[in-house]
Amino acid sequence: MPAVLSVNAGSSSIKLSLYDTHYNDKSPTLILESSISNLTAPPAKFTYTHTDKNNTKHNISSKELPNDIADHSSAFSHFLHHLSTDPDLPNLNITHTVHRVVHGGNFPTSQPLSKSTIAEITSLTDLAPLHNSPALSLVHSTLDQLSESLNVAYFDTSFHATIPKAAQTYALSPDLAEKKGIRRYGFHGISYAYILRRVASYLSKPIDATSIIALHLGSGASIAAIKDGKSIDTSMGLTPLEGLPGATRSGLVDPSLVFHYTSKASNLSRESTKEMHISKAEMILNKEAGWKSMTGTTNFREVLKRAAEGDETCALAAEVFVDRIVGFMGSYWVKLGGEVDAIVFSGGIGEKSDELRLMVCEKLACLGVRLDERANRRAAENDNAVVAISSERVSDRESVKVLVCRTDEQHEMVWECVKDERYWKEVGGKTVKDVKMEEAK
Amino acid sequence: MPAVLSVNAGSSSIKLSLYDTHYNDKSPTLILESSISNLTAPPAKFTYTHTDKNNTKHNISSKELPNDIADHSSAFSHFLHHLSTDPDLPNLNITHTVHRVVHGGNFPTSQPLSKSTIAEITSLTDLAPLHNSPALSLVHSTLDQLSESLNVAYFDTSFHATIPKAAQTYALSPDLAEKKGIRRYGFHGISYAYILRRVASYLSKPIDATSIIALHLGSGASIAAIKDGKSIDTSMGLTPLEGLPGATRSGLVDPSLVFHYTSKASNLSRESTKEMHISKAEMILNKEAGWKSMTGTTNFREVLKRAAEGDETCALAAEVFVDRIVGFMGSYWVKLGGEVDAIVFSGGIGEKSDELRLMVCEKLACLGVRLDERANRRAAENDNAVVAISSERVSDRESVKVLVCRTDEQHEMVWECVKDERYWKEVGGKTVKDVKMEEAK
Repeated sequence: MPAVLSVNAGSSSIKLSLYDTHYNDKSPTLILESSISNLTAPPAKFTYTHTDKNNTKHNISSKELPNDIADHSSAFSHFLHHLSTDPDLPNLNITHTVHRVVHGGNFPTSQPLSKSTIAEITSLTDLAPLHNSPALSLVHSTLDQLSESLNVAYFDTSFHATIPKAAQTYALSPDLAEKKGIRRYGFHGISYAYILRRVASYLSKPIDATSIIALHLGSGASIAAIKDGKSIDTSMGLTPLEGLPGATRSGLVDPSLVFHYTSKASNLSRESTKEMHISKAEMILNKEAGWKSMTGTTNFREVLKRAAEGDETCALAAEVFVDRIVGFMGSYWVKLGGEVDAIVFSGGIGEKSDELRLMVCEKLACLGVRLDERANRRAAENDNAVVAISSERVSDRESVKVLVCRTDEQHEMVWECVKDERYWKEVGGKTVKDVKMEEAK
Repeated sequence: MPAVLSVNAGSSSIKLSLYDTHYNDKSPTLILESSISNLTAPPAKFTYTHTDKNNTKHNISSKELPNDIADHSSAFSHFLHHLSTDPDLPNLNITHTVHRVVHGGNFPTSQPLSKSTIAEITSLTDLAPLHNSPALSLVHSTLDQLSESLNVAYFDTSFHATIPKAAQTYALSPDLAEKKGIRRYGFHGISYAYILRRVASYLSKPIDATSIIALHLGSGASIAAIKDGKSIDTSMGLTPLEGLPGATRSGLVDPSLVFHYTSKASNLSRESTKEMHISKAEMILNKEAGWKSMTGTTNFREVLKRAAEGDETCALAAEVFVDRIVGFMGSYWVKLGGEVDAIVFSGGIGEKSDELRLMVCEKLACLGVRLDERANRRAAENDNAVVAISSERVSDRESVKVLVCRTDEQHEMVWECVKDERYWKEVGGKTVKDVKMEEAK
């Protein structure tokens, strides 16, 4: 059976999806999902679930892994071993492995992984040390252990290559910025591409005529303004730190703040390695801030629960998040000239927290936004990829459409891979895979 | 003649205004304006101008000062000497000196300068080393050289004390933030107080029923959302660095950006002194960024002129500024629930650049904003404090009012001083001045 494996590495987890699919397949079939979490706090947790053609899950297994499985590479080996001994998947042939890579620098599209692209992604690790390293370690594992497979990198940044220069540029010396690659890149682009595609389909509009404000709200959170199918602004910038706060991220703060927080801001943190230089400031702002630092928990649902029970610190943490979201919503509304087909919530918090959606939308009433509170509460019960939660009308006019979209980065990468001629066709008697494999050796 | 002296120290300049006034005076009379500029690049330039009751200027003098006048203190002494020998001002009695102080920490109102308030302001210098030092040096000069005068500090931060907690708070550990005084303060508050008062009067509304978005756009630039006479958000934060770019400031950037710009971000800069610790990062972001770093000039008029002549870098610098302004306008529009009595441009650029106002307002069309282009072009010819530049109507509805307001921080401080009983009345047989003078000794 030919299949495409989709690999999504987080800072302490891996999500893997296996699809039964082929070139130009209009509906790749999910056959397996697996996840390994808690890698930085062993025992790691492993899940492995078959999915049949009706999308029903079966053979669900879940277990703790031995303590020596404590990095991405060993976790991936464990997964591959499990896969190769799975009696339900005989003759499995993984033709392509697609990888989510957070920082893709100036790459405007996905890239087949060759020596040169791997070197370029590695050099970007300096811009995003906390974000690219896990994916890179899995790229190397795949090259070793799935040597028959063509590896392709999909970047969180590519979707935002269309952002106009004014919004991409910081008010800094252009020469230095150019030399050091300092500009606003934006992230969560694989997710935004999925959301845009699903929402356009839901609205029965062509993608290039669809304009939305999309919110990817999870432990990392961002918002994107998408005009006629193209990103025109997003809240993350040079790195995923910019913009909204997250579970452990500060989001935007006064750029001189960290020097008041610690006098050793540019010292290397303990987490640095020979390859990976992380300043103390980057650790504080990425890992020791956000609602974790305000409330003690990274779980936003817990923050809201405690807030509802009267915990003022939790209430404040939630209000700070809502305040910043609402600020960006206003910005992007104006940048889209008020031509907004839908406001779309997604990501772990965006999809699951009807309270958060309500808190945000109540503050958008002046834009003509009003939720259908029942639809909002019950959105999670609905299996569709896109669910509408807005009222039909606000006073005398139509309400702006508000949608919830279950985003799926792994699916998006596979979907993009199967339609991309570059990765399937022969060129001069050799497939792209042959060429890249030779180069990678 | 009893008079109040208003002192406004910039980083390399001092603006001084002298008013003929008294307690509860409803219209303090400006009698003299003076400025000393170029203090950090001698020769300093000195201007000294009498103003009569019709606001007509006469005896205008302007000259270069000797090279040894190269700091705020010696410049102020020069001014006082000039004043004491002015034949038109015999028997001058400066009862009060009011000082603009940029960072007032948690002071919600102006403060008479006593030993303890001076100590507190000095301790805030660590939060705003680049901003408070000039004012402090003039406070000391005044205490020495105008010892009969009551000194009062007015803070750029006080006006923003009303900002709700969610917008004041960064997503950081509350304990550390509390201990180090890290929160969003906001600046340009003396200017915003003046603008609000003038605009409310122009609109014939009570101040506490007036809601505006005010833009103070100069070499330092910020925007404030004012709801029913109270600041509810503003673009500057812990320091004036946050928010919009300026002549030499970056404005908001990814909080980890500066570590990619230089590996020595937290080293002390050459500009540091024993009292004043300024990191290299703070110097870069405050003094080596903004449109100066992009185009070579701090003069925004020159940036626009070169852009009009086809200079792409200048065009980009202007577009970056407009992009960020428009983003905040959208945010604040939503935070005000769309209930905006007027959008008000002020500050050097806001008051003088009809091109910039047009570039911004064209992007606000979806909010119902449209300029009267002729009124916009001719606003600078008008002597009134507030000038309307919006069209009467946009399609079938009224246009949002757009105004230009000539802000005047020195006037605002005097106006607030003369109505403040604390600084004029006797308490237990002693005036506030007596008490504070004793304490200050």
